[in-house]
Amino acid sequence: MNKITRTADLMVPKVTTGPIAGSRKVYSSPEGHSDVRVPLREIALTDPAEPTFRVYDTSGPYTESDAAIDVEQGLPRIRTSWIEERGGVESYEGREIKPEDNGNVAGAALARDFPNKQKPLRGANGAPVTQLEFARAGIITKEMIYVAHRENLGREKALERAASALANGESFGAAIPEFITPEFVRDEVARGRAIIPANINHPELEPMAIGRNFLVKVNANIGNSAVTSSVEEEVEKMVWSIRWGGDTVMDLSTGRNIHNTREWILRNSPVPIGTVPIYQALEKCGGDPIKLTWELYRDTLIEQCEQGVDYFTIHAGVRLAYIHLTAERVTGIVSRGGSIMAKWCLAHHKESFLYEHFDEICDIMRAYDVSFSLGDGLRPGSIADANDRAQFAELETLGELTKIAWDKGCQVMIEGPGHVPMNKIKINMDKQLAECGEAPFYTLGPLTTDIAPGYDHITSGIGAAMIGWFGTAMLCYVTPKEHLGLPNRDDVKTGVVTYRIAAHAADLAKGHPAAQLRDDALSRARFDFRWQDQFNLGLDPDTARAFHDETLPKEAHKVA
Amino acid sequence: MNKITRTADLMVPKVTTGPIAGSRKVYSSPEGHSDVRVPLREIALTDPAEPTFRVYDTSGPYTESDAAIDVEQGLPRIRTSWIEERGGVESYEGREIKPEDNGNVAGAALARDFPNKQKPLRGANGAPVTQLEFARAGIITKEMIYVAHRENLGREKALERAASALANGESFGAAIPEFITPEFVRDEVARGRAIIPANINHPELEPMAIGRNFLVKVNANIGNSAVTSSVEEEVEKMVWSIRWGGDTVMDLSTGRNIHNTREWILRNSPVPIGTVPIYQALEKCGGDPIKLTWELYRDTLIEQCEQGVDYFTIHAGVRLAYIHLTAERVTGIVSRGGSIMAKWCLAHHKESFLYEHFDEICDIMRAYDVSFSLGDGLRPGSIADANDRAQFAELETLGELTKIAWDKGCQVMIEGPGHVPMNKIKINMDKQLAECGEAPFYTLGPLTTDIAPGYDHITSGIGAAMIGWFGTAMLCYVTPKEHLGLPNRDDVKTGVVTYRIAAHAADLAKGHPAAQLRDDALSRARFDFRWQDQFNLGLDPDTARAFHDETLPKEAHKVA
Repeated sequence: MNKITRTADLMVPKVTTGPIAGSRKVYSSPEGHSDVRVPLREIALTDPAEPTFRVYDTSGPYTESDAAIDVEQGLPRIRTSWIEERGGVESYEGREIKPEDNGNVAGAALARDFPNKQKPLRGANGAPVTQLEFARAGIITKEMIYVAHRENLGREKALERAASALANGESFGAAIPEFITPEFVRDEVARGRAIIPANINHPELEPMAIGRNFLVKVNANIGNSAVTSSVEEEVEKMVWSIRWGGDTVMDLSTGRNIHNTREWILRNSPVPIGTVPIYQALEKCGGDPIKLTWELYRDTLIEQCEQGVDYFTIHAGVRLAYIHLTAERVTGIVSRGGSIMAKWCLAHHKESFLYEHFDEICDIMRAYDVSFSLGDGLRPGSIADANDRAQFAELETLGELTKIAWDKGCQVMIEGPGHVPMNKIKINMDKQLAECGEAPFYTLGPLTTDIAPGYDHITSGIGAAMIGWFGTAMLCYVTPKEHLGLPNRDDVKTGVVTYRIAAHAADLAKGHPAAQLRDDALSRARFDFRWQDQFNLGLDPDTARAFHDETLPKEAHKVA
Repeated sequence: MNKITRTADLMVPKVTTGPIAGSRKVYSSPEGHSDVRVPLREIALTDPAEPTFRVYDTSGPYTESDAAIDVEQGLPRIRTSWIEERGGVESYEGREIKPEDNGNVAGAALARDFPNKQKPLRGANGAPVTQLEFARAGIITKEMIYVAHRENLGREKALERAASALANGESFGAAIPEFITPEFVRDEVARGRAIIPANINHPELEPMAIGRNFLVKVNANIGNSAVTSSVEEEVEKMVWSIRWGGDTVMDLSTGRNIHNTREWILRNSPVPIGTVPIYQALEKCGGDPIKLTWELYRDTLIEQCEQGVDYFTIHAGVRLAYIHLTAERVTGIVSRGGSIMAKWCLAHHKESFLYEHFDEICDIMRAYDVSFSLGDGLRPGSIADANDRAQFAELETLGELTKIAWDKGCQVMIEGPGHVPMNKIKINMDKQLAECGEAPFYTLGPLTTDIAPGYDHITSGIGAAMIGWFGTAMLCYVTPKEHLGLPNRDDVKTGVVTYRIAAHAADLAKGHPAAQLRDDALSRARFDFRWQDQFNLGLDPDTARAFHDETLPKEAHKVA
């Protein structure tokens, strides 16, 4: 089934550049921090009485109007000096790349290695490395300053409407402030209520926070597949998904060239990159879960830590004792990582090596500040299986592991379901907050019905909006191809935009101090028939414009 | 701007026929009622251990495998004998069709009249005519028997799972029974908690119920437009939207040929047709709201009653005293009907003639059993305006009018917003139930954010699922073209499927006794890799199959 990949195809990935229609990229620095340059997207409006409108921007330098992108160089390493200034890290000769890292391919089938690599860094002498360790020590990092300015959309003080907006919303016990200060960010990170996923080996990163007292975030999954895609396509998928609003990207690649593909993605990514290391570990043992070993897994973790992956999904909550709880399910174990670990546990009749070696995993991840995304390997794969004992037993274990990881100095978020009917969504959130000490929740949907293959961005967008309102900090997108096939470019865009809708609807309902400004600006444009402003203030100006032009193409109709 | 319409174009509308992929139409009769033939769609599954699966079917005879459709004849008049048997109606020479009914067009520009018309019926001698009157008199009509069998999907007794399904859901005080009996339908109609929109002049109708103790329903809007469409396209739009699951269709036509277009639609529609009579009345006075009169409006009501329209949106709650309450809004009055009435009230500085003549309107509608859909002319058009005093003042008046209409023997539902953030949705439902004595709520979305033109089927699908869960009986769809232009064929399908998702997610969350059966059947198919079954059990088998084939086209992948 593998597509034949020619080296020539992989030489220089081409990526989408240029501003999003009707807007331009600007950078804003908080007072006294000229080295902290926070990106924003500024939308010019046609009504002179309306000021330009600034929105949060995830798209990286690719949307600068004169973007000089050289994917062979990678993005500027904006955080290198910050990391070096704080100290406590050492540069060292990293682990040698092995043929198995790329699926034992060679010659023409091997994707070209990224040409501009640096030696990796790691924590040294037990000094603080992670954002959590600095936060606990009372140190406000540059990343925290960056995040605060970013969440405020560059504002230097609270909006006049902030207090009334908050009072007007319902945040179910969240503690969203009128204005985000660097100290607030530090405090949220120190309490474990927010994370700033930022591997010290990913200095190209534009820092962002995941936590329920910040704007709700969206993750987009990409992944090469043995069947259809190339390195070039994967880099472009990352660029494409952040263009439309992906806050983080998970690289779920399998098959060959995993290592080299990931390097190209990381070096060109301004957003945190997450992975599921067990996927690569499985490739290294020929796809047979039974052959997995702790040593192999450990080596894969280090490989990916050195490359700069920002968060790892680790299914350490799939304990041997829980597997039988899935026996009566309609859809058994649907998480790929969960299923791999269940097979291993049952074949060896042993406790999960991820659970048994959790301390060591923490030590490794701490040394690079890789955040945990504790995976829900027993998440329900159907409405019938929602909120069952298997799911909640695992969630309780994730709570236990959260505390261990925190003690080790690691940042943690928790993954959540899956398929859940609307009436059973809130208990997921409430239980997660209670079991996991308010560590950020990161959910896949949830899908609120199983009956609409081809439309699961919508079945899940409903659940995502609701759980985002209830307190989920980041929503993992679902595309229209979910359950059916691999998403293409249009599917990725549809998935991201759908989830930006869900995230924003959640921000609005929580009473976020600034969220409604964009709705109001767009509604004024709509009421005034300022068509261009309506398009440009929307999440997808191109589609709005095209839809309008289909039936009312005349220019006159757009300014009437 | 008007497209030139040639008579030849309008001769015989072509409509989509044939079964939905993987299924066939069947008819089921409750014991002892062979003249009550309830349509169902039966999906054959590939696993011999799985019985064929039956789903609710809105699509009419068009999806029969040997459909013999003659749009010039219209559909079979299945209810004529029922109506005649009950008596209390008289056939009479209807109002003469006037040139103004079709916008004063003549000759080649006039759409051909439907060739197979009957004389209209109306109530006579004060005998009961409406389903409400029969219900109150303790009479179970054929329509009620039909609806009960339809809501049970043809089952003759309660499912074993019914009690536990109900206990497992959260219905916010609804009273969904384990099994729907004709007596239950009668009682719900008698209490005003459900309506069966069924004009005695629309005998082609396959009866359905709208009420929160029944399955959540979906309305699709169609409408010719001076700019782009023809009679042929409008009939096909109706057929197309019920094919994908529209339970009712609103004909929002404006411009020329309104009367004749509506006649073709009604005579070929197995679902209730709703209209907004003020739209046609406005056409009759040259589009100037100030020239509207009660007499003109009254004449239009009778015209449409005689044709067989099943429910009328009537904006009688837009009272003179409420209009100033919209002055400070971001988006003023966005309802077209609301805006027409507001202009009339302000220009004449008089109370609305709809409010003043409400008794007479009731008398007219009762004589044909046209149901009220009391319009929310002051609904919010933006997040900023949600739940304001103007909106709720009107809702209170709609409650007052509900009681008047009930006293007159008329069936009533209530229209609801609009644009509402998630945290403000439930209060809409709670207030509607309280003010309007549990009359069915019929909402447009609501849209949960304003920032995604081009994706408003999704921004509103989120709100629709939630308010459906909370108790809304029917959801008015929104298409991707909302705010931008006129929906085409694909947009209508996307809108209907999105709203079927919302309605089903709501049924699931309420704990409907049978709703989850379809999710479970599809999930089993998914878990077993029975691809064909997964596609066919879905809301849109064609799209699911096409998406799968895009990346994994081999037949082997579908049975693996």
